[in-house]
Amino acid sequence: MTDTSPPLGTVHGVGLGPGAADLMSVRADRLVRGARHLAFFRKKGRSGHARRLVEGMLHADVLEYPMDYPVTTEIAVTDPAYNERLSAFYADCTRHIATLAAAGEDVVVLCEGDPFFYGSFMHLHSRLKGQVPVAVVPGITGMSGAWTASDLPISWGDDVLTIATATMPEEELTRRIRDTDALVVMKIGRHMAKLRRAVATAGRTGEAWLVEHAAMPEQRVLRLKDAGDTAPYFAILLIHGQGRRP
Amino acid sequence: MTDTSPPLGTVHGVGLGPGAADLMSVRADRLVRGARHLAFFRKKGRSGHARRLVEGMLHADVLEYPMDYPVTTEIAVTDPAYNERLSAFYADCTRHIATLAAAGEDVVVLCEGDPFFYGSFMHLHSRLKGQVPVAVVPGITGMSGAWTASDLPISWGDDVLTIATATMPEEELTRRIRDTDALVVMKIGRHMAKLRRAVATAGRTGEAWLVEHAAMPEQRVLRLKDAGDTAPYFAILLIHGQGRRP
Ligand SMILES: C[S@@+](CC[C@H](N)C(=O)[O-])C[C@H]1O[C@@H](n2cnc3c(N)ncnc32)[C@H](O)[C@@H]1O
Ligand SMILES: C[S@@+](CC[C@H](N)C(=O)[O-])C[C@H]1O[C@@H](n2cnc3c(N)ncnc32)[C@H](O)[C@@H]1O
Repeated sequence: MTDTSPPLGTVHGVGLGPGAADLMSVRADRLVRGARHLAFFRKKGRSGHARRLVEGMLHADVLEYPMDYPVTTEIAVTDPAYNERLSAFYADCTRHIATLAAAGEDVVVLCEGDPFFYGSFMHLHSRLKGQVPVAVVPGITGMSGAWTASDLPISWGDDVLTIATATMPEEELTRRIRDTDALVVMKIGRHMAKLRRAVATAGRTGEAWLVEHAAMPEQRVLRLKDAGDTAPYFAILLIHGQGRRP
Repeated sequence: MTDTSPPLGTVHGVGLGPGAADLMSVRADRLVRGARHLAFFRKKGRSGHARRLVEGMLHADVLEYPMDYPVTTEIAVTDPAYNERLSAFYADCTRHIATLAAAGEDVVVLCEGDPFFYGSFMHLHSRLKGQVPVAVVPGITGMSGAWTASDLPISWGDDVLTIATATMPEEELTRRIRDTDALVVMKIGRHMAKLRRAVATAGRTGEAWLVEHAAMPEQRVLRLKDAGDTAPYFAILLIHGQGRRP
């Protein structure tokens, strides 16, 4: 018997960069414009940031596969049910995408920033790997967008740059903020009050900047002391390094 | 008297990404192709990596301004003469570029990776700022190229990612390697033996990868234990985070 199955398609995890369409790479731009199958994550009921970014670039007969997160804030992250629901969701998405690739179709998965840097695509990648070909296109991270917006370099000479998430315990966050030259804090959202306290306890409020919606039309750069008690989903805290500079 | 001087030109610090021409952003691609004045750093006697990357993209009558580093290894980094020579060099480059911009000419300065992340352009930026308009185009960093090449995500959930340079003292390097989830070490070059010892003392040799020439034709991904005692200029050490993953 000869194998008449078509060659496998490739799943492309495509980094879109921080938020301006022309900050996507030439490779990403080409893949998005050529896509027949387009998958992207979104919060239920929302249009999805990644999807909005490619509006106007898509092929007329593109087939879209929105992946709606099943949980956002109804279940606590610490509840085991949270992990179970998310895990089942990623398994479902993987099945759908793997089926397409097995049938010979290429699939473009849109990713905010860089796919391998705290990205949701990583949960598909780990499940797809070994089943079907997966190719990743790196992207400009949200933090590069943020320090560019601040108009100051993030790290010089032999500065240590620490990247942390505001989701971690306050004490640990404080320790990390104290023990670094340059700092990036991601995933701020509902943790703004804690983050502000941690920065203050570490004695670094005067150096801290908040960048909201970097590289997007609503971009805002402000000193932490002028920021409010909540931050949008797209927000990054920065402390710029002051290292050796001839 | 009326002011008949032309409007000022803009100096664009343009991030080229990790090394593949199609990993430059659409904005960078457009600026490079349209450039009339192109400036770039290089080691004396070398063609310059950034300049090679844009070969074939340039306007026929582009005017090139190579900036040859005056010191590489002849003077020790700790010798005050090192800083003085570099500082005079950056001042010279700034003068040349500022003169062009003052005459109304736009200048594109090529930058490897992202301009504000341990980049040489930062030394021009800090001197040009306030004199003439400067615009920065973020780029995909070398480290994004490196973890993409390794085919494994760098950070998950609330992983802490530490970015350090192999130029720092061994003890401090060891402490940093021990005290993080995920790790990126840049500027390895002649510090490979020290770095290898620091990773071993921190007990993390089994998790460590070396990525050479990420996203370039010579790309190589190897386990640290299989790496030699020297690394090329373009080399990054990675330890991938293992954080929460549903
Ligand atoms: C799930 S992570 C995804 C990170 C993304 N993969 C990247 O490379 O930047 C989401 C977090 O990234 C940060 N972020 C991403 N893009 C941003 C932007 N343009 N402006 C501000 N923050 C951004 C925010 O801190 C947000 O909470
Ligand atoms: C002066 S720093 C410039 C970093 C650059 N601005 C960036 O965004 O990646 C030079 C160091 O970057 C790292 N690097 C940059 N691009 C790289 C690549 N494609 N592959 C491996 N290492 C790279 C190496 O560690 C090198 O020593």
